[in-house]
Order: sequence, then structure tokens, then C-alpha cells
Amino acid sequence: MRFAHLSTAHDRAPRLAAVVDDRALFLDEVMDEAPRDLQAALESGEAGLARIRSMVHHAVRSGVSMSPVREMRHASAVQRPPLIIAIGANYAAHSSELALKVEKAATVFALWPNSLTGHESTTTWREDLTTQVDYEAELGVIIGKPAKDVSERDALDYVFGYTVVNDVTARDLQFSEAQWSRCKSFDGFTPTGPVVVTADEIGDPQDLWLTTNVDGRVLQDASTGDMVRTVAQLVSFLSRTATLLPGTLISTGSPGGAGYSRTPPVVLHDRSTVTVTIEKIGSLTTFCRVI
Amino acid sequence: MRFAHLSTAHDRAPRLAAVVDDRALFLDEVMDEAPRDLQAALESGEAGLARIRSMVHHAVRSGVSMSPVREMRHASAVQRPPLIIAIGANYAAHSSELALKVEKAATVFALWPNSLTGHESTTTWREDLTTQVDYEAELGVIIGKPAKDVSERDALDYVFGYTVVNDVTARDLQFSEAQWSRCKSFDGFTPTGPVVVTADEIGDPQDLWLTTNVDGRVLQDASTGDMVRTVAQLVSFLSRTATLLPGTLISTGSPGGAGYSRTPPVVLHDRSTVTVTIEKIGSLTTFCRVI
Repeated sequence: MRFAHLSTAHDRAPRLAAVVDDRALFLDEVMDEAPRDLQAALESGEAGLARIRSMVHHAVRSGVSMSPVREMRHASAVQRPPLIIAIGANYAAHSSELALKVEKAATVFALWPNSLTGHESTTTWREDLTTQVDYEAELGVIIGKPAKDVSERDALDYVFGYTVVNDVTARDLQFSEAQWSRCKSFDGFTPTGPVVVTADEIGDPQDLWLTTNVDGRVLQDASTGDMVRTVAQLVSFLSRTATLLPGTLISTGSPGGAGYSRTPPVVLHDRSTVTVTIEKIGSLTTFCRVI
Repeated sequence: MRFAHLSTAHDRAPRLAAVVDDRALFLDEVMDEAPRDLQAALESGEAGLARIRSMVHHAVRSGVSMSPVREMRHASAVQRPPLIIAIGANYAAHSSELALKVEKAATVFALWPNSLTGHESTTTWREDLTTQVDYEAELGVIIGKPAKDVSERDALDYVFGYTVVNDVTARDLQFSEAQWSRCKSFDGFTPTGPVVVTADEIGDPQDLWLTTNVDGRVLQDASTGDMVRTVAQLVSFLSRTATLLPGTLISTGSPGGAGYSRTPPVVLHDRSTVTVTIEKIGSLTTFCRVI
């Protein structure tokens, strides 16, 4: 099943929808006490999720009318996450191009919720704050139920689904500040979406192709099979010290090809368009404006 | 006004209470549609907060019966924050003892919500994960309304209140991993409380005395006047790149006297008791167990 937070011209706020064949089924149109967003659905537990799944199947079978998603506006595919964890240096090629050594433990930091934005939104930044804005294509993992001390073998049972993340980064701040939280958490620097796809539709998360296209050029082109640490290893590792709460988004690191490390370097500029695509999930487009 | 999340023996979950003369006034006992927690109250905006303030004043004047807080269990003074920002190296003495240079920009990272716990709770850790657990007394700042591009002069208008934070840290992980998020975000590593005190009762946040007492010894003893960057400067700085959402907790860094840097070093051990006290707010006690 595929979920998105969408709004029509009449909506003041995005609403949770199931996406079926590129058409939107708004949950609040087919069920009573519909969850306001995917976070609320996850917090309703397995019974709540089963109810949603059943209502969506029933509505689709009964031929309910649905409007094309392309007529709607996308908000971030995740809303109100309790936490956004990002993993650094998780593809050997990206680590070597940034002259990072692959550490014994995963490199783990956090992004801020103000940075979330949706597919086909416009991300702006001020030139006096950063002049080196870069893209990073990443597979996003959404935790479905509380995970503590989970083994690698069991870890994927705790994953609700997957999305596309563009971990936009102010490289100049990243290299002048030791901690990587602020430079990646400007408003609009974490586009996610267009949808969250449930784990059953993805199968093996280590067998997905990722690409980044900037203004028509393919600049990242890799498989999640190249991750240093797999999704299962990351979930297990993180759950050793922390309970991962439902709705936690884990952005699993970016492959080689980041703009900063290219010869010549690529920097996002006013009117750049970035599209990150992950197989089986979809394409996430971000429009850039320098203000 | 002072707020806490408290539970009696009969409660399954903590409830939001105003604390008046060490007695608890549960909001759901004096108002309809009471916010479930302080986060919900903050999200209800200024009108919602004014309504709470008015109901509490009315209930107190009418002599409603209130039970002593000491008979109740404290949960974290902040619940479901959208983000917990922590500031490193914000007191010159602590920076020099950790051999950190004071950077041009503030050192900014994030803590995870699973780490939150309340006054008089027990924080446990496994010896195979860390053997160097340390305390850090910090003034916690709770943002009251969305803050973006706020000047230093206006910054304190965006502060709802203050609390006590103990930024418990696995020093061995902090010094072996470049990013400081995981080592400070074990379950139970962010005690906050006992209360959130509204800004009007605090006055100048740069004139508060902090102490840390470990098993009867005073190991940190400083004034918030010694901060490298003031609360107003931090809020203004952070709001340049990010919108600070209501309920965001900013833990403003710890003064000198951290256990790791003492001669001989002090490490928290099984059955250590740590109490962090901040003037005008209160004392936050944490019991330690190694498992």
C-alpha cells in the first residue's frame, strides 16, 4: 500500500490518502475517525493499521471515485515524526569522496522536523547563510512499532515502510561546524516522498536502484546493495541504546556522486531542479530558489 | 505558572497539572477538553494558553482541593517535543576541560525523545554498551510559538518557559564517535523537570544558579551568566536557518565540573544519585542502575 499527504485546492491542510494507481483515496472520505496523518495511523497500532487497510481495500473494490494525484499538492510523506535519524558515510564511494573514514560504529545524527517538505515543493535559502547547497539521495525507513534491542534477523519486522529522502546539505556549514545537525536542517532541506510504500511492496531493501537527476544530468546512480550497513543492521544497531518510536524516520545515507566532490563541483543554484528516484517508490522533485 | 506531567497510583498515563505551592491541580479536573499534555497546550496557541491560565487561577481562588506533588510520580516535564536541540561547549570552563575550542558558531546537535524521563526516575544502562556515564546540568528552554528570523532583542518573547535538564552522556561513545547524538540519547538519558516554569516567573535567564550534586558532593556550581552564548543569542541564531516549532526544547549547555574532566574522574555507577538544581525552577533527581 502507498500513502501520501495531499491537499486539493480546497484544503487548508494536507490529508492522509492511500495512493492507488496514481489516484488518491482520502481516508477521511471512506472511514469514520480517520487518522489525521500517517503518524496518527502508526500510533493507532496494528489494529488501527489493519482497519485502514481493510477500509481502503473495500473502498477500491466498491469503485469509489478517486482523483488523480497529479492534480494535488504533496506535503512531506512523513508528518510529525518523533525523530528523524540520519546516517552518514554509509556508502563506501560517498565516504571516500568526502575523505571520511568508515568508522567502526555507524555515523548517526538527527535532522529537524522544520526541514521536512514534500514532492514538487520549492526549497529556498539565503545566500548570506550558505552558498554551497548540495543534494543527497537517500532511502528513508519508517519504523512501525517500538523497537528496542532488536536483532538483525528480526529488524525488518519493525519497518512499516520506505520513502525517498533528499538530505539537502549546506556543505559550507557542514565543513565549518563539527556537528551535522544544523547544516542539514534548514527549513525545506528534507524533502520526503512522494509516498510511503509499505514494506510488503518493497521486498529486499538492499536491492533498490537510486538516482539523482539535477537539471537533466544524472549525478548519483547506485544500488542500496552498496550500503556499508544494511537497513536491518542499522535498525538493530540503533535499537541497542534507544527505543525507536513508531514514525521514526531513518535516512540511510547517500551513495557517491554528491555535488561537492565532483570535478568540477556541482552546487545547487537558483532555479535548479533536483529529482531523486528510488525503484519501487517513486520520484521526489525539489525546486530550488536562492533568495 | 508551573506545569508538570504527573500520575497518581490510579493513572495509567501522566496527566498535565499546574503546580501551586507544591500541590497538583490536574487540568482535566477543572476544564473541559483539557490539553493532554503541555505540548498540546502550546499547540493550542496563545488563546488556548490564556484559557488554561484563567481556569487555573479560577480553580485556585475557588479553593479546589489539590494533592501534594510529593505523593505523585513525575514524567518528563516535556512530552512529545517536535525537537530537542542541545548546545555544546556553551560555558568556557566546560569547553576548556574537555579540550574543545569555542567555535565561531554555536555547537548544535539533537537529542532523541526516547531519552526523556522525569524527576526521581531510574536511568539504567548496560555495561557492555558504556562504562563512562556522566552528568551535565543544563538550563532547558521551551519555545512557545514559531520562531523564524528572530532578533536577539525579541528572542525571549518566543520562550514559553524553562526547565532543568540533565544531559546524561556516554563519554566513551562521545569520544569514539564524531557525532554527539547517539551517546546522549540512550533511553532515560535526558531527565527533565520536575516542572516547566513560565518565563514571567524566571525573569533574566542569565542570572540563575545551577548545581549538580552526586551522592552528596557538589560537582557543578555555576551561574547561567557564564554562558558563552545567552538564551536570546541561541534562539536568534537557531532561528536564522530553521523555524523553531512550539514545544522545541533547547538544552543550553553545561558548565564546568563534568565528571570526565575531574581529577580523579567521576563516573556515574550503579546506585549513584544525581540531583541537578536550578534556582527558581527546582531540583531534578535521577537514580542510576547499571544492568
